Amino acid sequence: MAKQFHFIAIGRAAIDLNAVEYNRPMEETKTFSKYVGGSPANIAIGASKMGLKTGFIGKLADDQHGRFIQSYLEGAGVDTQGLVTDTEGHKTGLAFTEIKSPQECSILMYRDEVADLYLYPSEVSEDYLKQADYLLISGTGLAQSPSREAILKSLLLARKNGLKIIFELDYREYTWKSAEETAIYYQLVAQQSDIIIGTRDEFDVLENHLGGDNEASVKALFKHQAELIVIKHGVEGSYAYEKNGKVTRGKAYKAKVLKTFGAGDSYAAAFITALVNGESIGTALKYGAASAAIVVSSHSSSEAMPTIEKIKALIAEQDK
Amino acid sequence: MAKQFHFIAIGRAAIDLNAVEYNRPMEETKTFSKYVGGSPANIAIGASKMGLKTGFIGKLADDQHGRFIQSYLEGAGVDTQGLVTDTEGHKTGLAFTEIKSPQECSILMYRDEVADLYLYPSEVSEDYLKQADYLLISGTGLAQSPSREAILKSLLLARKNGLKIIFELDYREYTWKSAEETAIYYQLVAQQSDIIIGTRDEFDVLENHLGGDNEASVKALFKHQAELIVIKHGVEGSYAYEKNGKVTRGKAYKAKVLKTFGAGDSYAAAFITALVNGESIGTALKYGAASAAIVVSSHSSSEAMPTIEKIKALIAEQDK
Amino acid sequence: MAKQFHFIAIGRAAIDLNAVEYNRPMEETKTFSKYVGGSPANIAIGASKMGLKTGFIGKLADDQHGRFIQSYLEGAGVDTQGLVTDTEGHKTGLAFTEIKSPQECSILMYRDEVADLYLYPSEVSEDYLKQADYLLISGTGLAQSPSREAILKSLLLARKNGLKIIFELDYREYTWKSAEETAIYYQLVAQQSDIIIGTRDEFDVLENHLGGDNEASVKALFKHQAELIVIKHGVEGSYAYEKNGKVTRGKAYKAKVLKTFGAGDSYAAAFITALVNGESIGTALKYGAASAAIVVSSHSSSEAMPTIEKIKALIAEQDK
Amino acid sequence: MAKQFHFIAIGRAAIDLNAVEYNRPMEETKTFSKYVGGSPANIAIGASKMGLKTGFIGKLADDQHGRFIQSYLEGAGVDTQGLVTDTEGHKTGLAFTEIKSPQECSILMYRDEVADLYLYPSEVSEDYLKQADYLLISGTGLAQSPSREAILKSLLLARKNGLKIIFELDYREYTWKSAEETAIYYQLVAQQSDIIIGTRDEFDVLENHLGGDNEASVKALFKHQAELIVIKHGVEGSYAYEKNGKVTRGKAYKAKVLKTFGAGDSYAAAFITALVNGESIGTALKYGAASAAIVVSSHSSSEAMPTIEKIKALIAEQDK
Repeated sequence: MAKQFHFIAIGRAAIDLNAVEYNRPMEETKTFSKYVGGSPANIAIGASKMGLKTGFIGKLADDQHGRFIQSYLEGAGVDTQGLVTDTEGHKTGLAFTEIKSPQECSILMYRDEVADLYLYPSEVSEDYLKQADYLLISGTGLAQSPSREAILKSLLLARKNGLKIIFELDYREYTWKSAEETAIYYQLVAQQSDIIIGTRDEFDVLENHLGGDNEASVKALFKHQAELIVIKHGVEGSYAYEKNGKVTRGKAYKAKVLKTFGAGDSYAAAFITALVNGESIGTALKYGAASAAIVVSSHSSSEAMPTIEKIKALIAEQDK
Repeated sequence: MAKQFHFIAIGRAAIDLNAVEYNRPMEETKTFSKYVGGSPANIAIGASKMGLKTGFIGKLADDQHGRFIQSYLEGAGVDTQGLVTDTEGHKTGLAFTEIKSPQECSILMYRDEVADLYLYPSEVSEDYLKQADYLLISGTGLAQSPSREAILKSLLLARKNGLKIIFELDYREYTWKSAEETAIYYQLVAQQSDIIIGTRDEFDVLENHLGGDNEASVKALFKHQAELIVIKHGVEGSYAYEKNGKVTRGKAYKAKVLKTFGAGDSYAAAFITALVNGESIGTALKYGAASAAIVVSSHSSSEAMPTIEKIKALIAEQDK
Repeated sequence: MAKQFHFIAIGRAAIDLNAVEYNRPMEETKTFSKYVGGSPANIAIGASKMGLKTGFIGKLADDQHGRFIQSYLEGAGVDTQGLVTDTEGHKTGLAFTEIKSPQECSILMYRDEVADLYLYPSEVSEDYLKQADYLLISGTGLAQSPSREAILKSLLLARKNGLKIIFELDYREYTWKSAEETAIYYQLVAQQSDIIIGTRDEFDVLENHLGGDNEASVKALFKHQAELIVIKHGVEGSYAYEKNGKVTRGKAYKAKVLKTFGAGDSYAAAFITALVNGESIGTALKYGAASAAIVVSSHSSSEAMPTIEKIKALIAEQDK
Repeated sequence: MAKQFHFIAIGRAAIDLNAVEYNRPMEETKTFSKYVGGSPANIAIGASKMGLKTGFIGKLADDQHGRFIQSYLEGAGVDTQGLVTDTEGHKTGLAFTEIKSPQECSILMYRDEVADLYLYPSEVSEDYLKQADYLLISGTGLAQSPSREAILKSLLLARKNGLKIIFELDYREYTWKSAEETAIYYQLVAQQSDIIIGTRDEFDVLENHLGGDNEASVKALFKHQAELIVIKHGVEGSYAYEKNGKVTRGKAYKAKVLKTFGAGDSYAAAFITALVNGESIGTALKYGAASAAIVVSSHSSSEAMPTIEKIKALIAEQDK
């Protein structure tokens, strides 16, 4: 790495309030534990824990929750020079997690007028972006203005300054106005991204029709900037498509599932870390799957992010 | 009581998330306990626990928090026929409480676009209101439309149908646009109310100037509908002014203060209960002060509401 | 008159763009003439022309249309000390009038985000109001915040300072959110008004049900502040109800109708002028009807406002 | 032309209300003439008058002004299959023009919540777009959602279906939130456009800094899709830059200027018409300049659009 950061992530950092008493409806939960949450924050935290140099651009509420997030990110080794404190009274996004059973998880979201969606384009610094090899864009930040424009600006600046762009689709229906609007911004950004990661469902969102086909999806995107596209199919594993036509399949690892939250973030953190470390696509897929298996077995999404050693141990254990 | 309910309260029912680990900044609190909150809900719960028949008109989110509130109110004996479930995706209001020390308490509010402020006037039923002796209006519900109009409608209907109106000023700066707007609606409602209860600070808000004087405040209001006005001065006690010129002073009781939240709600619940039970103004002031002393010594605002027996015991104990 | 002004009107002053080529659909009109419009502005202009001292409280756009209105009001003798110039980029309300035939008139309204609805309560001066005998409130100003609160403040101040209140219902469906909301604010203001003027349809709006009955309407309102209520029934004439039970019927005068706009404003201007001049209710009803007959025969609503002499001449002519 | 339309324009169609009595402040203008206005509508009308087959995608108010626009476009030969009628109560945009002198012209805009900015992406048809050689995007339509997304969708569909894209910068400060936001969307669209036309000031807006330099501007844009860039410098003439490095200068023609409005639209209409007709860049620059000279000498922007014959006549006259 010639630059200061392997990647800078842009988007939301929020609070998860996880049910302390679980395997029941949330109505019967009396106590909640507080963790840092939000896909791009989780990925930056995870990758930092796995050894990468990461930075984060985002906006935090000027309150106790905002200060908790900032200090947690710093503790996890994520550079926070790109963090901005909200001055307009916006609050931190919240996600109350309900775990009725390992298979029945849901989230009660507080995302109205939250601080992360009020990042202004003027608050994105070209000088800061220049210090990274990759820009990681998380789809949810595109859902509303002015965060949308802040991210589009980061995209224009990244392209201008030669950063490669990783687009983690991270689709959260809650914050979007319409499926059509989502598809428009997802396509605009995907057409300018080098690496695109998402579930099959998320690629359907990008294409705005159900039941899409991987071959067709990657064919359309390879006409533009993309070099590597990862499409995840849950427990059936995932596929990495390269522009040169190569396809690699990765399997999922077994886990003692406590809840399903955090799987995608831990997958992305580990997959990207492997790539940056020069591992093969096949190995990167293993890292992603192993990391996801570890996080779904734990109570949080951020604090449970594994080290490389833990990931390697799980792969060694289950691959033998 | 010739009617079904001693009083019906209208306004917000919400969620308190109280710091489990306290006497520290909220940044260092890892766990939060969930309780029902919101001034008029707390008053209805408290008065019900003290033996009154109470009902509640309000709007709840269509989610786990909304359902928790509904079932808690029912468990506390509050009639919930007047509850409406939101259909527009609004969320339950939240109050994270921070207890740095008994003297330094603060609240981190989530009140943007919350369900209780989306009660529509069409959702207030004249037939339901007719069943009560009193309508209890909580000031915060006047802060935004359409809740503001729902409450103004309940006021018009109450006056038309002969209910007496209790106005608990319950001022929360957070939800209001400007001091001037607050004063306008507070005055409009106060001029049509029979009983008005608030702190000295809240009467200053009603008059839109600082440092107001009790004599002047009650003189202006007694030109209109009011018969009884209670102005609270914290640990210095409170004053009850009657239209006939009588003034009664009530003292505060000693308490081992854990936090200051909930004092006003428990005061109002006990004061109103005493009045309805035919107690003298002097006794009602004692009930209010004793009930407040009990709640500030406990962890919650709703669950800690005392019974009449507990109130009487504290009075007996401290008055001897 | 012991005071400076017979009345001060509060509410909107706007622009009418009247079809120059009429008796055709507006699609075929190529040219429009510009006049001052808006019910309370028209009433203040009309009454001033009829000899009263009038003032106006309202907000004007900071542009050519706003400056035209200000200079027109001044030219018509209306005091403009109460005018405020908008600083937030709001525009002047517009009304394009279509005259397909004398019986088929319609208005294409531009009322989104207009300056008159952005009068803030802080911009209403108690010292200015004190100088008038009457405050004239026009219903449309209650439709949206902050104009709504500015008018409620003027009502509170007028009551406090002993002004009598004239409420011209002036209902414009376009600016209101719902029939229920309209009825709530109309009732709140009507219950505190001394004189109430409107069409039968407008009293139905106040009561939020169709087909209301005059006797029932006035009975409900006479329980409150009202002393005089005028209900207009178009060409069938109008009725003036007094609190003492007296009812006076006024007939409509014949007119060579060009269009129906402006009838209500000219009626109110003349009726109020007659009252202030000490004429009998019967004579005031004649003034109102004669003034309306003159304006519906002319091209504009403001510029066509007649003098007292012209009104008397028409009465003399048609009553002989 | 193998396809149905030479170009389809997308964006606003609105109403101009031009001062009948001019060379004075608008306050003193009593009468206004109604014309169709809006840059992309004017360009489609002008090009149609000059012989091209054009279509228009936009949203019209469901009122007399909307119907007037539709029928005017049809009369001018513009295909209106892509027009959608608003169902949400939005109004037609208005531009009152003030002509104090030929050098001092200004516009009083009514652009709040106007129908053209409420074109939804779902209302843009791929089948319709496929029938054109070019898509003409006008910058103002990017100012607000959902029109912004409708245009971004048309851009994605046009690229997918092989249409070339003409971007007329058409910057109107009034409708934009911030200079930074404007620059972001202008750059995104410009990077995907084949032909870009604007004034030097408008290229400064695209770059979000004042005093930009033509060479630098075109160098940055030629890294992307652009093949031809026209930068206009008012009376000093204009420059056409081609990707191959060729630069052609065009001069301005003399005109007896009545007002400056409409110059850009007539320029674009004639320049594009010449290009489509296979004329040289040099000739196209002459067409644009001649067409602008004719329109600034006339009272309207749309109705004054010249025929090819009139353009050729002016060129012949002034070039001899």
